[in-house]
Amino acid sequence: MKLATLKSQQPDGRLVIVSRDARRGVAADDLFPNLQSALDEWSQALPLLRERSDALNSGRAPGTFPFDPKAAAAPLPRCYQWLDGSAFQSHGDLMSKVFKIENPQSDRPLMYQGMSHEFLSGSDEVVLPSEADGIDFEGEFGVITDDVPMAVGVAEAAGHIRLIVQINDWSLRTLAPIEMKTGFGWIQAKPACSVAPLAVTPDELGPAWIEGRVALPLNVQWNGKQFGAANGQAMAFGFPELVAHAARTRKLCAGTIIGSGTVSNNNYREIGSSCIAERRAIELLDSGHPVTEYMRFGDSVSMRATASDGSAPFGTIDQRVTASAARA
Amino acid sequence: MKLATLKSQQPDGRLVIVSRDARRGVAADDLFPNLQSALDEWSQALPLLRERSDALNSGRAPGTFPFDPKAAAAPLPRCYQWLDGSAFQSHGDLMSKVFKIENPQSDRPLMYQGMSHEFLSGSDEVVLPSEADGIDFEGEFGVITDDVPMAVGVAEAAGHIRLIVQINDWSLRTLAPIEMKTGFGWIQAKPACSVAPLAVTPDELGPAWIEGRVALPLNVQWNGKQFGAANGQAMAFGFPELVAHAARTRKLCAGTIIGSGTVSNNNYREIGSSCIAERRAIELLDSGHPVTEYMRFGDSVSMRATASDGSAPFGTIDQRVTASAARA
Repeated sequence: MKLATLKSQQPDGRLVIVSRDARRGVAADDLFPNLQSALDEWSQALPLLRERSDALNSGRAPGTFPFDPKAAAAPLPRCYQWLDGSAFQSHGDLMSKVFKIENPQSDRPLMYQGMSHEFLSGSDEVVLPSEADGIDFEGEFGVITDDVPMAVGVAEAAGHIRLIVQINDWSLRTLAPIEMKTGFGWIQAKPACSVAPLAVTPDELGPAWIEGRVALPLNVQWNGKQFGAANGQAMAFGFPELVAHAARTRKLCAGTIIGSGTVSNNNYREIGSSCIAERRAIELLDSGHPVTEYMRFGDSVSMRATASDGSAPFGTIDQRVTASAARA
Repeated sequence: MKLATLKSQQPDGRLVIVSRDARRGVAADDLFPNLQSALDEWSQALPLLRERSDALNSGRAPGTFPFDPKAAAAPLPRCYQWLDGSAFQSHGDLMSKVFKIENPQSDRPLMYQGMSHEFLSGSDEVVLPSEADGIDFEGEFGVITDDVPMAVGVAEAAGHIRLIVQINDWSLRTLAPIEMKTGFGWIQAKPACSVAPLAVTPDELGPAWIEGRVALPLNVQWNGKQFGAANGQAMAFGFPELVAHAARTRKLCAGTIIGSGTVSNNNYREIGSSCIAERRAIELLDSGHPVTEYMRFGDSVSMRATASDGSAPFGTIDQRVTASAARA
């Protein structure tokens, strides 16, 4: 099942169900006004939404409409918790080189708490204060949980993964190592993320949901040029492990989003990367210094996980960075 | 003006106004159902709430009731953003010693993003999985903002500080240095915080609100024994600086809580500390090894900022830690 949120006057938007081919939508806000409210009561919500989704996909649903991804907000335009992992070993290896920091990869999942009060849509302009901050995209996958008890085990955690999403975790690279060196994690280096329009149930991915990982290439283009196609299956820790890690000493609320970290594969020289910083690290390794500059205002990035049939299960992120109005 | 949230069936509780002497309350949920909704429209909310507060304090308000702090939730039982600073230099100096890490204090405010989907009340039991995690309290002050624009200046930031609160930022010290060394900040080391029942407007503190700092001693008792009375005025960066720091590359949503970090003063040997880890650091300095153990299940802690007239502007935190039910 594919769910989306249409922008509305409400901060949480309006819940809709989207057809398997992503062409048609049908309202679901008579059942649950928004995705958060459905996640709050997921065991009640799932059969109701599934029934309508089945009707939509079999052409039996009344009141369907063409689904316009540009009218979509992020599936959760805001939520109470966003925890981002860094589960791709090759990404960690490269980042520690470009930032000249000790590689934090270890036998424990890496995770930070990020801002969750605003998620941009996949087509919103990305308003940022300064090119000098080192504007970078980061292509990721993420999962959305319902309520998760404290100290949940990995097997039980897997059952709390209700939806899967595709994320662009915007990063400001000039600020990142300064904040990282404090040990406190990132505030200024991590502005609002963007999320592709479709949140899908794990079954919707079929054979591409393997051991709690999204086994699909994430195609990234920067200003229309191919940049990377790393596969999400290479996570050192799967999403169930990340959920259990997050819940070790806290309950997780419904609507918690947990990210994979930047999708990255060991054969990065062949398939490219999902963020600029990684390319810069490869350049550093290959020629002694980074060559590729970070993004300029007006630059665009697109991200699209691609299934074996060529479809995009999460829809597409395609957006532009732009300067915030000057402030006194 | 003093505001509080009574526990109710709703996750955000029910907004009430509390008299200056904290003895009487009057409902305000006919105006705004909860504190979050009031903060969302603060410029409209403030005069309405103030009018009723004035009536309450002058004995003219109908329908008042005895205010029972034990019936109160945290002023915001959940919010979309909790950013905790570490603005007391003596705390940073001591913590780097006890954790054998480089002192992260610098010319920039220190800040991490913490979990915000659950804040315990000042009297809730604090349910945690293991004494071996090194259970510690941390007495702090915090401010609550309304909507803050990206890249706000310090002077403008000061005007967005709408309420002030008193916080117990629970910490698990065995886990803290492990997570800190990754550079990613804390997840497992920072379970839900507790917040004293009363959120107060800055004017309510009178002369104790100085340069964006709470100039009051925070009296901390552990199992009924005096533990510390550090004064909140010693922040190296005031709350307006912390708000501006947080907003450098992001808008802050209404209901953002920003913490001071553990209240700590240079004369810690005379006045004590606001967390156990600091006392352990002092013992390490004085005798070569920490002596005081962290908390045990069943232990209690109380925290009470005390005004010059002996009153407690934020009410009192007084709570007990307890073991979570064993999980498979």
